[in-house]
Amino acid sequence: MRTYEEIRNTIKAGLGIHKCDLKIENVKLVNVFSGEVYETNIYIKNKRIVSIEPQADLEAEEIIDGHGQYAVPGLIDAHMHFESTMLSPEALASVVVPQGTTTLCADLMEIANVAGEKGLKAMLESIDRLPYRMLIEVSSRVPTAPGLETTGAVLGANEVAEIMDWPESVSLGELDPSKILFVKDEYIHKVADTLARRKIVNGHAIGRLGQELNVYASSGISDDHECVNVREMLERLKVGMKVFIREGSSERNVDELVKGILDHHLRTDNIMFCTDDKHAREIQTEGHINYNVSRAIELGLDPMDAIQMATVNAAKHFRLEDEIGSITPGRLADILLVDDWRNLKPNVVIFEGEVVAENGKLREECPVGNYPEWIKHTVTLKHEITPESFQAAASCEAGEVEIHVIDMIPRQIINTHSTEKMKVEQGRITSDTERDILKLAVVERYGKNGNVGIGFVRGFRLKQGAMAYSMSHDHHNIVVVGTNDADMSAAVNEVARLNGGLCVVCGGRVLGSMELPIGGLMSEKPAEEVMSQLDELNEKARSLGCEMDAPFMSLSFVSLPTVPDLGLTDKGLVDVLAHKLIDLEVR
Amino acid sequence: MRTYEEIRNTIKAGLGIHKCDLKIENVKLVNVFSGEVYETNIYIKNKRIVSIEPQADLEAEEIIDGHGQYAVPGLIDAHMHFESTMLSPEALASVVVPQGTTTLCADLMEIANVAGEKGLKAMLESIDRLPYRMLIEVSSRVPTAPGLETTGAVLGANEVAEIMDWPESVSLGELDPSKILFVKDEYIHKVADTLARRKIVNGHAIGRLGQELNVYASSGISDDHECVNVREMLERLKVGMKVFIREGSSERNVDELVKGILDHHLRTDNIMFCTDDKHAREIQTEGHINYNVSRAIELGLDPMDAIQMATVNAAKHFRLEDEIGSITPGRLADILLVDDWRNLKPNVVIFEGEVVAENGKLREECPVGNYPEWIKHTVTLKHEITPESFQAAASCEAGEVEIHVIDMIPRQIINTHSTEKMKVEQGRITSDTERDILKLAVVERYGKNGNVGIGFVRGFRLKQGAMAYSMSHDHHNIVVVGTNDADMSAAVNEVARLNGGLCVVCGGRVLGSMELPIGGLMSEKPAEEVMSQLDELNEKARSLGCEMDAPFMSLSFVSLPTVPDLGLTDKGLVDVLAHKLIDLEVR
Repeated sequence: MRTYEEIRNTIKAGLGIHKCDLKIENVKLVNVFSGEVYETNIYIKNKRIVSIEPQADLEAEEIIDGHGQYAVPGLIDAHMHFESTMLSPEALASVVVPQGTTTLCADLMEIANVAGEKGLKAMLESIDRLPYRMLIEVSSRVPTAPGLETTGAVLGANEVAEIMDWPESVSLGELDPSKILFVKDEYIHKVADTLARRKIVNGHAIGRLGQELNVYASSGISDDHECVNVREMLERLKVGMKVFIREGSSERNVDELVKGILDHHLRTDNIMFCTDDKHAREIQTEGHINYNVSRAIELGLDPMDAIQMATVNAAKHFRLEDEIGSITPGRLADILLVDDWRNLKPNVVIFEGEVVAENGKLREECPVGNYPEWIKHTVTLKHEITPESFQAAASCEAGEVEIHVIDMIPRQIINTHSTEKMKVEQGRITSDTERDILKLAVVERYGKNGNVGIGFVRGFRLKQGAMAYSMSHDHHNIVVVGTNDADMSAAVNEVARLNGGLCVVCGGRVLGSMELPIGGLMSEKPAEEVMSQLDELNEKARSLGCEMDAPFMSLSFVSLPTVPDLGLTDKGLVDVLAHKLIDLEVR
Repeated sequence: MRTYEEIRNTIKAGLGIHKCDLKIENVKLVNVFSGEVYETNIYIKNKRIVSIEPQADLEAEEIIDGHGQYAVPGLIDAHMHFESTMLSPEALASVVVPQGTTTLCADLMEIANVAGEKGLKAMLESIDRLPYRMLIEVSSRVPTAPGLETTGAVLGANEVAEIMDWPESVSLGELDPSKILFVKDEYIHKVADTLARRKIVNGHAIGRLGQELNVYASSGISDDHECVNVREMLERLKVGMKVFIREGSSERNVDELVKGILDHHLRTDNIMFCTDDKHAREIQTEGHINYNVSRAIELGLDPMDAIQMATVNAAKHFRLEDEIGSITPGRLADILLVDDWRNLKPNVVIFEGEVVAENGKLREECPVGNYPEWIKHTVTLKHEITPESFQAAASCEAGEVEIHVIDMIPRQIINTHSTEKMKVEQGRITSDTERDILKLAVVERYGKNGNVGIGFVRGFRLKQGAMAYSMSHDHHNIVVVGTNDADMSAAVNEVARLNGGLCVVCGGRVLGSMELPIGGLMSEKPAEEVMSQLDELNEKARSLGCEMDAPFMSLSFVSLPTVPDLGLTDKGLVDVLAHKLIDLEVR
């Protein structure tokens, strides 16, 4: 929110009493507020837009000639988790900002699950140096699946209320429907405390429809980013929830939902864009929110609608339209200069009145700050991990048992609950590479209880070796998938040795690994280095037989205990819709 | 904002754990959120909407058969001053609620100018008993014209910040552009304090265009209800301000602006409706916000657009879309049942889940509360008022002088600054009924200094007598217009005797009067009685020659020192744009 001083300075610059800092002349302004495009100049002083009046004639310290380019407001990602990029907020800048995203509404639930309020605070230390705006969607689910998992920290209603008062906090992050449908007091308190502060409650209504969705919406939840088909989108709009159309690495909803908008002639004022989880490399090659916009336009959406969805619609939703989301007087000067407003490739990105990126590159890298030592030591194994840690005991000594299997759906985070007959040898069930039914385990890594949860999964297609990762949504214990217990053990021990990270192991040998010291989730390295290392590691996973686009991102989501049908935590297999632990064997 | 208990009850009703209070079955739901109309049922519990799911099958204590009527959200007046109806909040209910307005965003600046924060508090005492919702736009201008007028009270930045924290307060009320353009610290503090609370700053940008408008908008002002032509509307949208299209008694902007929307194919999501100042009798005969909607549709606006403007658009603007403005789960159940959604004549009005009006009448009158005695004694004349109090001294003993004249524009509150030659007799200037140049005076009525400001006005056409009124915007001293000083004196003394009110005097005799004891602005009587008395008084004014539609409303606005070109206060004539006092004679 702007201060008295800021307001006064903006007025004085507009009156010509103070000289403006910057004039961007000769642009075609994409005015998302009035819905027009027209030629004018833009005056900026102290981070804010002073005037867009074509007839204004104010002095400025610096002049940029727009050469007739379109001036588009900086783009807003309405919902994302930046931990899944593996990058620190500082390193992420070099990836998202050149694509034109100047505001990230980030649910930092991953670091919160690892390190709580203290972890969140540590992440915000760089906030004033970033060439983009980080707004906080305060995690509602730390832990996500209470009672079903071990996490590093807990954010109760009191902690959430406290964090909600931070100036960066704009909403309560993606509230799980089961918390409402099972009338969980703690979560209702979190909702009430958020609404009392006139902030927004973000939804997460995967698959919910009809009366369940009505009940969910009735509790005060304002949006959903989990629509995967048109019916879901239409139902959310009907119950008064806004829709964030997501295009992430594995969840790609733009095509289907934008076609739905066109087929149903929907008004777009209750619709906006997000990425949720998108890999740094894909952001770099394909784009970020600018990709959502350009793709929507390509599909036939009116460019003004598409740009509004990426800018002012999100600003209004978060009740910040007086601050961001349009190039209009008084707003923070987040401006992209592009040749073609139908294909947003920014030549220049201006954030709060400063040119921060040109031609796809940051003007200056944002150096990674000094994270506290404690946040770099969050991995502690209570018990030694050995191949025996991963034994899956059967109810018989030999023969066959029927087990629950997490059946992955390509490019989705939801999965199917299958059951499969598995051979038992010496009382144990082992991976079956032929039928691609591999052992999956989650190893508790906060030094609390040394739990190891064991399940089976279809979809990775590893023919040998194992992969492990200390980001396992949302509890972020160490998740490991493998064809044999020895490699699984070696992989987990390598991740622990790194104090968090990911690795590929085969025949007891570490083929490759990367350390992620910040909470076991994020690197301290620049983006390019992290992306190259990740590319190599994904390549190594493919060398073992995996055919996925993003093997490690899939690994990090496969065990999620809140996304149907099945999950896996350090405590065991989870029946998500029933919200309970189940045995590995079908009884 | 809803409490934890409310949220829990709504959820439990939706889950069938609690029985709903009300089911409205068989309606065509006008879903302003999704932009659709479809058949369904509406379930309500504890004031809130539980479900609108067609397949839901919940039990309810009471069932209303909608008989296929349209269910439209309760209408929102985005900006009004209810003091100009002369009715108490309780009495006003019987006029506005049967027309379908369930939320009034009221700038109570009149009572605030008379009695400050204490006066505002007194007005809110009935708020919980009203069959509509009163939201407060906290007056930014008490006084409106500092230094140029005497008011009963002052609301400085500290008082405004304090009132802004009240739960009913949604915005800072209509900020005068001169306060921004002259960089007045006190008002910039008021803006900053409002934005810091994530609330809205309402504008009042009469006639401002171009760079002046850019500067005004740049200070954080979010809307304007003073557009009288299409160019003004377009310019406000361009600078990121929303537009309230007003249809009051004297200011009628719907026709021109709605035609502008249609001609320019404007999106309507940044546009809403208000009345600003509308007489009770006109609300009763013509309608309230339902008139704005129906007229807009008649002019060719899409019914969904028009109804959104009157409901969800205003709710979103005031950042209350989770509470009001749509018939969607969790929102307060404000619902109209109408036969025709193109012509909103409510058969039933439901406010917070209760039927409050049927077929144009309240189910139960809302009894006027016990206002404190002090608020009924706000008129004190410091000096005795006699005919001599109104002498207009000229700069010469005889001959002619040129004076400034307030030249009224029919059906507008703005006026033209004319100059006219007037005959001087015995060193005095008197009313000239032939040329309709009548004496106008403002008499200080708070017992502070006994000032009498004198000017001349064209437009009333009185041939004899005088009219006086203790509502004189915005300071609310006693304003009087007359053909002779004796009748002017008698009229002012009558208003003082009544402790506030209005009267018509001729030949020293009071032809009619009405007391307005609440702050000298509002009656304690029921609406019907006040309207009849006012009709009679307007008739009496017409019997003296006045040809205006609403003589007393015109009288209350004619001297306003903030609306161009000229104003008059107890301190004298005001040049509005220059914001300074000027002499009566042209020098």
